Amino acid sequence: MKSAYLRDLFASHRLIRAVGAHNAVSAQLIERHGFEAVWASGFEISTCHGVPDVGILTMTEILEAATTINRAVQIPVVADCDTGFGNEANATHMVRRFESAGIAAVCIEDQRFPKANSLVDAEHYLEPIESFVRKIEAATRARSTEEFMVIARMEALIAGLGLGEALSRADACVEAGADAILIHSKLDSPKDVFAFARSWRSSTPLVIVPTTYYQVTTADIGQFNKIRMVIYANYCIRAAVRAMGRVLHSLQVAGTGAQNESVVASLEEVFELQGMTESLGQRSDLRNFGRELQDVTQRSH
Amino acid sequence: MKSAYLRDLFASHRLIRAVGAHNAVSAQLIERHGFEAVWASGFEISTCHGVPDVGILTMTEILEAATTINRAVQIPVVADCDTGFGNEANATHMVRRFESAGIAAVCIEDQRFPKANSLVDAEHYLEPIESFVRKIEAATRARSTEEFMVIARMEALIAGLGLGEALSRADACVEAGADAILIHSKLDSPKDVFAFARSWRSSTPLVIVPTTYYQVTTADIGQFNKIRMVIYANYCIRAAVRAMGRVLHSLQVAGTGAQNESVVASLEEVFELQGMTESLGQRSDLRNFGRELQDVTQRSH
Amino acid sequence: MKSAYLRDLFASHRLIRAVGAHNAVSAQLIERHGFEAVWASGFEISTCHGVPDVGILTMTEILEAATTINRAVQIPVVADCDTGFGNEANATHMVRRFESAGIAAVCIEDQRFPKANSLVDAEHYLEPIESFVRKIEAATRARSTEEFMVIARMEALIAGLGLGEALSRADACVEAGADAILIHSKLDSPKDVFAFARSWRSSTPLVIVPTTYYQVTTADIGQFNKIRMVIYANYCIRAAVRAMGRVLHSLQVAGTGAQNESVVASLEEVFELQGMTESLGQRSDLRNFGRELQDVTQRSH
Amino acid sequence: MKSAYLRDLFASHRLIRAVGAHNAVSAQLIERHGFEAVWASGFEISTCHGVPDVGILTMTEILEAATTINRAVQIPVVADCDTGFGNEANATHMVRRFESAGIAAVCIEDQRFPKANSLVDAEHYLEPIESFVRKIEAATRARSTEEFMVIARMEALIAGLGLGEALSRADACVEAGADAILIHSKLDSPKDVFAFARSWRSSTPLVIVPTTYYQVTTADIGQFNKIRMVIYANYCIRAAVRAMGRVLHSLQVAGTGAQNESVVASLEEVFELQGMTESLGQRSDLRNFGRELQDVTQRSH
Repeated sequence: MKSAYLRDLFASHRLIRAVGAHNAVSAQLIERHGFEAVWASGFEISTCHGVPDVGILTMTEILEAATTINRAVQIPVVADCDTGFGNEANATHMVRRFESAGIAAVCIEDQRFPKANSLVDAEHYLEPIESFVRKIEAATRARSTEEFMVIARMEALIAGLGLGEALSRADACVEAGADAILIHSKLDSPKDVFAFARSWRSSTPLVIVPTTYYQVTTADIGQFNKIRMVIYANYCIRAAVRAMGRVLHSLQVAGTGAQNESVVASLEEVFELQGMTESLGQRSDLRNFGRELQDVTQRSH
Repeated sequence: MKSAYLRDLFASHRLIRAVGAHNAVSAQLIERHGFEAVWASGFEISTCHGVPDVGILTMTEILEAATTINRAVQIPVVADCDTGFGNEANATHMVRRFESAGIAAVCIEDQRFPKANSLVDAEHYLEPIESFVRKIEAATRARSTEEFMVIARMEALIAGLGLGEALSRADACVEAGADAILIHSKLDSPKDVFAFARSWRSSTPLVIVPTTYYQVTTADIGQFNKIRMVIYANYCIRAAVRAMGRVLHSLQVAGTGAQNESVVASLEEVFELQGMTESLGQRSDLRNFGRELQDVTQRSH
Repeated sequence: MKSAYLRDLFASHRLIRAVGAHNAVSAQLIERHGFEAVWASGFEISTCHGVPDVGILTMTEILEAATTINRAVQIPVVADCDTGFGNEANATHMVRRFESAGIAAVCIEDQRFPKANSLVDAEHYLEPIESFVRKIEAATRARSTEEFMVIARMEALIAGLGLGEALSRADACVEAGADAILIHSKLDSPKDVFAFARSWRSSTPLVIVPTTYYQVTTADIGQFNKIRMVIYANYCIRAAVRAMGRVLHSLQVAGTGAQNESVVASLEEVFELQGMTESLGQRSDLRNFGRELQDVTQRSH
Repeated sequence: MKSAYLRDLFASHRLIRAVGAHNAVSAQLIERHGFEAVWASGFEISTCHGVPDVGILTMTEILEAATTINRAVQIPVVADCDTGFGNEANATHMVRRFESAGIAAVCIEDQRFPKANSLVDAEHYLEPIESFVRKIEAATRARSTEEFMVIARMEALIAGLGLGEALSRADACVEAGADAILIHSKLDSPKDVFAFARSWRSSTPLVIVPTTYYQVTTADIGQFNKIRMVIYANYCIRAAVRAMGRVLHSLQVAGTGAQNESVVASLEEVFELQGMTESLGQRSDLRNFGRELQDVTQRSH
């Protein structure tokens, strides 16, 4: 079970590196490059749907994307579940759906529904901690196995409420049963998440997302043994967007794809990722039909 | 109506350039780079689902991807509908679903169900032309408007059956009501599709897909006035796969994303593609709640 | 266009009778029994999904059910969209999705997200009217045609806030562009909805849902010319639940289905509803294959 | 695991009674009436989608319905997977999807794709047994646990090919790894399925579907200890269709729903099936907001 495996990883004191994915192939590439987990990213999946990352995507859409991602890899998937899609009843329903789909963990944040992407230049409003705590309690109560993980994501630093508020909210979430605390920040340095880690007294592991403070290295993070997971949340979609834009520009200007061949994956690489080889062995029926049908075709001319 | 607009494009004698997409953002980039149409590619969408392009993807999955793509752009979408997902009854059902979703055209090929990707190294088996003709007739009869287009894709060259067979099958499809003929080839030169175009007597427009003969230019194609559409079928997903692989490799080796920043799209670029600005103007309710709630939060400490 | 047709019905001063449906076949039966519209009911659809009608069902799930229903009938479909699935941004997105799916109207209620079913014994909390007005404005602004209808559903009587509050909220919604006002009540008589109708000064039409005051007749309603639509919201699913329970009980007790034959629809009735006849005419390909294959089968023995 | 439980039931020599369902609530009623299993019926689900039962429904649609059904009950679900949706590659993919969704068993029939409903007055064409055997082999090979069951459904009697052909095809399927044999018939007596059972030498259990020979009792079936499962395949949808028709007729004629109240389930019954009680306990957040908001509302008037 992937959730048990993810718990083992958290217990192993090795830094877990998760990378954001938006579909099967991005997840497959993350696995093949040796990362330990996949982050089914709301930001990335929103981009695939053409909607802003402000709570427009429905639970159904995130679940479907996370399930497709999960099917494609052996490593565990952590699903970005925004604010849990409503109140305690919604969070309860959500946990049941994600757990039964084989997802290893869900992450629920304490913005008010509907959220705004943490890094966008907008005001961010938090849910009162009392009601967020009930949501975390409902989420942990809803799981059918002990292994499934519920990660509480603290947006207090994003909302400008300071370290004290972030710590006290995180404490309340641990009390409520959260299995890990994601402490988010939009500073351009890891200063405040490191300060949080230094002040963190609980044994509950911490998770960070160095999007704006991208210079931080795994070696830097390794100095904080409370931080057990780092999520590189959005490189896959950002890499894809840039690369597609370049290839399209070149195609537009040159009137031919010739110059693109060297900068795109080969068809064979993609066939291999799709699992083409196995399926081609399974066309024996067509092979037989094929013979008869070519006969029919030839006879008819 | 996009289907009427696509018909106008075909009538305009200007070469229509369509590019393969697999989700909303790839389609948006295709539109922004000035292409005239989007190809909702079975190969690309299969890759996103982690399944081989051999007829595994269901009509539901292709329809959903094509609909998401269509919503994201103003230019018309041509959906790659493999073999029509079965017999005449399936093709009838399929046309109704795609037309009512706002898709401008469907393309149905004469491989036997379930198909193999045309470019994979495997045998390809064709449907007897009599039964494929009935499928094209059913598809054209099923549309509720005259504008919706049915493109017949000829795989005779792919199956090694030669120019004569390809031409006589294409003639039968025109007779059956096909609005355009896609003549596919896996040669590394446009030799045979150009031969086909030269021998083509009908006024029904031709469509080509220069994947293996990628050197061909729009100028080359422009010399054949029967060829009215060129589909660059799979550059987006291939560009994305290569770029994601590179960024993941670099992240793995460097232990930080710092060096990736210059080779990926900025967050702002992606926010803009998502349509973030409009939605941020619509948070006035939260703004009010926000104030009350920050109050509540502050009072409670 | 079905939305234009629905507007014409509202303008015709004939009482529009809509009945709640949960899938294609219930909608087909509603149409065949001569009703003018279908109500894609959140209560009914929730029952099919096995979830309580308290805002658990996602927009995706309601849209999918409403779309399936809409495909199955020629009469217009009014979709029960709960609270609009969030704030103004969610309502904007929702209207675009339902309109492009061919739905004629959406109904948005002024409970706070996530709602509770209006008739369940629970407290019901309303959204402040200022923010609900912005949601209605966003919804009307989001439509791409003038014809698509936005119905505002007032839950003030459900929440025990009295006629005055209900009227002033409804006025604000008309100001905001609502095309009709659904005034809901859980009294066991039409007393308060009739009082509402009597006090209603606007020309915007009213809609009522006589679930608890089921004795009311179309003749009674006809005396209030402001009331233009009556929704029988949940008879289909309630009839189905009762009938399935009885047949299952009898099957369990008798150990045979013999006695059920007279109380269930015949297979032929269901085939006819499915549209079986058309599709059977479309198996010519199989007929040919069939012959060859029976040959193959016979030869192989 | 439900598949292990279903295997135990088959081993217990007690007759397993499965009933056809089309959504969560029909499955819940089946469970509550004491049946041992649910049949996720292609015929019933097609009716909900408004499409004929001739292979129009996609794997995605059947899987989604089966998954919704499975979530709603504790008893095992057997999914009606038509012809396996294509060839060996499709069957492989299908088994993986259904098994990972928690379905206990799939049933694959030996009609040619796309099938016609077995009981409709049409010709039925069988797949050559050699290719069907490969499909069964692929299906059994594709499962990730030993427990998941693959049931082979023999349509030879339906196609008029006689007992000998039915037996030899069934033998071949057992050889290929089928876990049970469903022997289908459209006679109005159990004569031929009982003859099949008498001639059956293998220890692989048999399954029957007494739709046309509905008079058969569990006592009759009990005399054939090879027959371990009986599927009442379509009573739920047929009961629902008849009951909805009657209620709609009465509503149309009477102009009021008053007379329907006694023949439909109460709202409370349906709320209870939906699981309303649990969710109402989870609105504590709204309760708090509610108070503040009623305040706001009152202040604003």
